[in-house]
Amino acid sequence: MISIGIVGYGNLGRGLEKALAHNPDLALKAIFTRRDPTSVKPLTAVPVVRLEDAPQYTDQIDVMILCGGSATDLPVQGPDLARLFNTVDSFDNHNHIPAYFEKVNQAASENGHLSLISVGWDPGLFSLVRALFGSVLPNGQDFTFWGKGVSQGHSDAIRRIPGVLDARQYTMPIEAALKAARSGDPVKLTTREKHWRDCYVVAAPEADREAIRQAIVTMPDYFDAYDTQVTFVTAEELASQHGGLPHGGFVIRSGETSEGIRQTAEFSLRLDSNPEFTASILAACARAVYRMRQRGQTGAISIFDIAIGDLSPKSPEAMRHDLL
Amino acid sequence: MISIGIVGYGNLGRGLEKALAHNPDLALKAIFTRRDPTSVKPLTAVPVVRLEDAPQYTDQIDVMILCGGSATDLPVQGPDLARLFNTVDSFDNHNHIPAYFEKVNQAASENGHLSLISVGWDPGLFSLVRALFGSVLPNGQDFTFWGKGVSQGHSDAIRRIPGVLDARQYTMPIEAALKAARSGDPVKLTTREKHWRDCYVVAAPEADREAIRQAIVTMPDYFDAYDTQVTFVTAEELASQHGGLPHGGFVIRSGETSEGIRQTAEFSLRLDSNPEFTASILAACARAVYRMRQRGQTGAISIFDIAIGDLSPKSPEAMRHDLL
Repeated sequence: MISIGIVGYGNLGRGLEKALAHNPDLALKAIFTRRDPTSVKPLTAVPVVRLEDAPQYTDQIDVMILCGGSATDLPVQGPDLARLFNTVDSFDNHNHIPAYFEKVNQAASENGHLSLISVGWDPGLFSLVRALFGSVLPNGQDFTFWGKGVSQGHSDAIRRIPGVLDARQYTMPIEAALKAARSGDPVKLTTREKHWRDCYVVAAPEADREAIRQAIVTMPDYFDAYDTQVTFVTAEELASQHGGLPHGGFVIRSGETSEGIRQTAEFSLRLDSNPEFTASILAACARAVYRMRQRGQTGAISIFDIAIGDLSPKSPEAMRHDLL
Repeated sequence: MISIGIVGYGNLGRGLEKALAHNPDLALKAIFTRRDPTSVKPLTAVPVVRLEDAPQYTDQIDVMILCGGSATDLPVQGPDLARLFNTVDSFDNHNHIPAYFEKVNQAASENGHLSLISVGWDPGLFSLVRALFGSVLPNGQDFTFWGKGVSQGHSDAIRRIPGVLDARQYTMPIEAALKAARSGDPVKLTTREKHWRDCYVVAAPEADREAIRQAIVTMPDYFDAYDTQVTFVTAEELASQHGGLPHGGFVIRSGETSEGIRQTAEFSLRLDSNPEFTASILAACARAVYRMRQRGQTGAISIFDIAIGDLSPKSPEAMRHDLL
């Protein structure tokens, strides 16, 4: 049995508690929180512990899975906890990954721990697939599409507009762009051609809806480069029809192995729950981290450093027999 | 530069010569053949050498890529060449993989070499994806579909029927079964429900076509469990319309992470040339074998043992920056 700790009990932490139930070789030892532990109500009878008490658990936990956010939680918790434990996290602030890797690598290396950063499905499985596709089809071009799925960042950006009470934004891939990517024809797709943005907004009764719509569609970085549709709904409609966190996406690479000979590879996900699927990946990755650390590896690693066999509960013999 | 040798110059060997041209860090040193070397005409100015002279090349070749068939070539060449070189092969006789692995493992281990067996796209990428999907969605079910693609084994089986001059058989996935697999509903698909077989046959002028058709559709193991369509064509039609070796397929897994929450992952390939794509995978795998051997690993391995980063020509830093 591999002993697991969860740090942070939001959507991802809750998803992880569910994911661990599907992995009989992974045992949840404790949930660590910055909140008052009595205010956290896990689904199972697992102890909830103050994060500041984590150092008392170093000999009881094989792998700590960090379920905090990339904006403020992980930049601090990642290196701090890599000093105390083997860790897995889903740090997804792309531009800061190299610096984050260095910090975690130093903390983990100096203390004889192994830390896997930035896993989930993107970064994570999609990254793995981009690397795989690029390696086996070097003479080609790939495209990543996201959606249909809820973007928390874009939903939050809408919520900050005066007069908006609540909002939900779906990132939507554009079918014609998917088709072009699959065609294998050399193609250049703009930001606007690849995705559109579908927004459901609850406005305050007195708010100017047209002003809100304008504020959304012209918002720099978030919306101005996309075609954006804004639909005003009631709070009840938002809750009943847009309460889930679905997501998904596509990685498509097409390339030639010789003149006129086209090969196309595609990977796609269709997820009812983004946090639950991300959590399932983190659980399998904790198994790999445990095994790699047992073999002596330390420092920071990414998904590119993991052999897929280490993610599986099956033995190497069983994998060759059942899956090869 | 990594020095590569190719053993066997059929469709796969020729595909490999093309694939190496897209990988600037892999240098083709020599092609080894059991035929008269002067009868082999490579696309590039590479030396062609008798296979029996291979032992003279042990200090010149980093990785030998075995392009022979699984029926008679590889069972002998795999272990023999693993005694002399690091090797990569595409052994695909599923039932014999465990025994083949043991033989190659012993030969490679005893001589300090590293041998990667059974890579290509199935076994190979599809195996990797089945392992990955099963690890991240343990509570689920997966399906593998093949085609539209030419099956050499089934084409050969038709050619052995008296009165048949030539034939080409396409394995065809059935759209309704793909849809059922993607639905995530618990589903049991029979052999007949998953694929059908589409045959193009050149008959001798005097042959009884109905007898040939009957011989095909009732053939045990090959055709009797499938719906099979037989179309008689001229030799010219077969050459002009069925001369390629396209293939492809799908791995689809759907599972629940909690009650009613469905997650579906899909991987697919659409290939103009099966041997050229398989060769491209073998080339990337040779890079991984070289790197892993440099780090001290010996014995036999499968694709489950390879970190994806080792397949890529990019540095770890570049991968984290560009692909994560």
